[in-house]
Amino acid sequence: MKAQNAFYAQSGGVTAVINASACALIETARQYPDRIGKVYAGRNGIIGALTEDLIDTGLESEAAIAALRYTPSGAFGSCRYKLKGLEENKAQYERLIEVFRAHNVGYFFYNGGNDSQDTAYKVSQLGEQLNHPLTCIGIPKTVDNDLPITDNCPGFGSVAKYIAISTREASFDVRSMATTSTKVFVLEVMGRHAGWIAAAGGLAADEEHDIPLVILFPEVPFDQEKFLTRVDENVRAYGYCSVVVSEGVKRADGKFVAEAGGKDAFGHAQLGGAAPVIADMIKNSLGHKYHWAVADYLQRAARHIASKTDVEHAYAVGKAAVDLAMEGKNAVMPTLVRVSDTPYRWTLGSANLADVANVEKGLPRDYISDDGFGITAACRTYLQPLIEGEDYPPYRNGVPDYVVLKNMPVEKKLNTAFKI
Amino acid sequence: MKAQNAFYAQSGGVTAVINASACALIETARQYPDRIGKVYAGRNGIIGALTEDLIDTGLESEAAIAALRYTPSGAFGSCRYKLKGLEENKAQYERLIEVFRAHNVGYFFYNGGNDSQDTAYKVSQLGEQLNHPLTCIGIPKTVDNDLPITDNCPGFGSVAKYIAISTREASFDVRSMATTSTKVFVLEVMGRHAGWIAAAGGLAADEEHDIPLVILFPEVPFDQEKFLTRVDENVRAYGYCSVVVSEGVKRADGKFVAEAGGKDAFGHAQLGGAAPVIADMIKNSLGHKYHWAVADYLQRAARHIASKTDVEHAYAVGKAAVDLAMEGKNAVMPTLVRVSDTPYRWTLGSANLADVANVEKGLPRDYISDDGFGITAACRTYLQPLIEGEDYPPYRNGVPDYVVLKNMPVEKKLNTAFKI
Repeated sequence: MKAQNAFYAQSGGVTAVINASACALIETARQYPDRIGKVYAGRNGIIGALTEDLIDTGLESEAAIAALRYTPSGAFGSCRYKLKGLEENKAQYERLIEVFRAHNVGYFFYNGGNDSQDTAYKVSQLGEQLNHPLTCIGIPKTVDNDLPITDNCPGFGSVAKYIAISTREASFDVRSMATTSTKVFVLEVMGRHAGWIAAAGGLAADEEHDIPLVILFPEVPFDQEKFLTRVDENVRAYGYCSVVVSEGVKRADGKFVAEAGGKDAFGHAQLGGAAPVIADMIKNSLGHKYHWAVADYLQRAARHIASKTDVEHAYAVGKAAVDLAMEGKNAVMPTLVRVSDTPYRWTLGSANLADVANVEKGLPRDYISDDGFGITAACRTYLQPLIEGEDYPPYRNGVPDYVVLKNMPVEKKLNTAFKI
Repeated sequence: MKAQNAFYAQSGGVTAVINASACALIETARQYPDRIGKVYAGRNGIIGALTEDLIDTGLESEAAIAALRYTPSGAFGSCRYKLKGLEENKAQYERLIEVFRAHNVGYFFYNGGNDSQDTAYKVSQLGEQLNHPLTCIGIPKTVDNDLPITDNCPGFGSVAKYIAISTREASFDVRSMATTSTKVFVLEVMGRHAGWIAAAGGLAADEEHDIPLVILFPEVPFDQEKFLTRVDENVRAYGYCSVVVSEGVKRADGKFVAEAGGKDAFGHAQLGGAAPVIADMIKNSLGHKYHWAVADYLQRAARHIASKTDVEHAYAVGKAAVDLAMEGKNAVMPTLVRVSDTPYRWTLGSANLADVANVEKGLPRDYISDDGFGITAACRTYLQPLIEGEDYPPYRNGVPDYVVLKNMPVEKKLNTAFKI
């Protein structure tokens, strides 16, 4: 069997560890020179394939590829671009096959969330039909932790660790200030559809750190009165309160809390953010002085405090993607399989892309406490191992020395335009 | 000379390293048992002295005190409470002296910013007058870096490091997404009056990390058109742009940019934050998709990534406070003296509280680039050493194992009420 080239692309919102998967994939592929020729990366994700804008990772040094392990973001660029259904826009899929055929690509590795697994599945089907069979492997990635079958998604553990740490640190701060100043701190976290990241805020408290926390999950309809009562109870009992609010929290009528406001001076809808809305509510109803923060990209890019477990997971699935391909598997995604909670033990498995595609895993109801404002012991048991361990990047001049790749283009063979 | 007790209080906004100063002070005081009896801490700062609510630090274990070195926030509680002028409210000062006399306090250590140095100075004057002479030593602390004479203020270096790292990480993220999604990232940082913290965002870029940054300083009147033009130029040249905006940025008419908006649905002033205002401006004028973050307390509590230099400074001034007292100095504050930039060398000095009190050190104009959107080489030379080195705390269950002290009260001797 003659060596074929591989195509790798990063998809959707990037994470602190998606490059660790890329690192593993490229390092592992280089161990199979007889079967895998070049590893081409899509510049800006799948758009790079559609526009024949490929990056030759073979031109990067071993040191640069190794540095991907500790560099956050998507080193080749990512994109928010969902391929339509096969029936709706077959031309897109045909174009992918055309580009892959032109560049002798026999392996398609797609590193992303639900949509990406769906795309990888469809490409595998169409390759067969168009007589250019491809080995298609999905690689799990998402801070939202919403892929099915796999125990967790690389990227999530590091966000969870960041939010747990930040919540503990800010809670220590507000406790110091509460007598004469700030009594309530509100932190807004990601998670438009599921409360996985908000739940991680619950790890800020433990037996030795009794922190009064109120978590607002997207799964629990926001009850303003009940919420304010709880915050005030905490302030009375502890002197202060910390609130972790998911950006996706909704009222009973289905409207996002973040959209609660009015218009600005120019008639534009009020500038977003659930945290300022919640903070203002506390000020107006309870009169407590507040501070609020919106972590936004800081949380998912925070490679400086990535979870060691998460980095190991991310590397493992990147390596497993190549291993599965070498074993002749197709249309699968490596998964993380939890063997035991305490001590945490895990191994690798695999799932059919057909079973992964477009299925979302929500936060189980029994992970949320009965009052809707906290996490249960079951949730803690699940989350705890995912934030374990630190995996510090190297520093230069006081700042992490993240790598910037050369990202040299592969010479085009088709040179035909394709409109995105 | 018979041993007298010491009083220590933390004042104003807390930092990631103020407890390192407390750690040093207590550890050093314990080395002088013949001269310093107990170290009492004020519960919630100076309020603890006024209300005779003292904490006996002697009841804390050596391990607990040592753990203060890596625990952010104010372990004994802080307060925002400025004593009035001696003439206006002599009763407050007299009360302090009364409490200190009752508890045989002969040393007054006050850990804070400008106001606190002023208070320490006045206490030293009044103690003489009231025939209860006190050795009064100020200990510098402020994330705002605005104390005079000292090269820098403990607390600032760690915030600066956090902002430099976060800006680099988020910039990597937005660069990955820019082709199809977010093109501009806006990070709001602290600094109501001076741009020291905003300037630290400039350290995200260096020779190997060419990041298009626009910094908005409180010192530079905000010129909306010029700002938007610069952002758009960056987006055209790089595909993306990162903006670091100080909470204190003002328009030419002196109004805070954060106050630019209108009213919400209930008629309240629009919820704050300079970042959402700036982001909305970019969206409306340039049409670029944006993300924004407000770091708020996360930046000053982020002990998990404190600057090693800053921690060493904080410990050194805490120790020096006791050393100065033991040398018979009074009404002074230990200072950090820069000996050389590269390699960074520093030593300790001292300043008279009279010269420190109520003097604010601003960001020099020659630290801001001519266009007003960046930092100069001189600024980089000054800032660089302050963020050098990492000083990681110990972890337990994936989260820093910060200490919570017992904070046992000292038995009251006066038992008279004092209204705050």
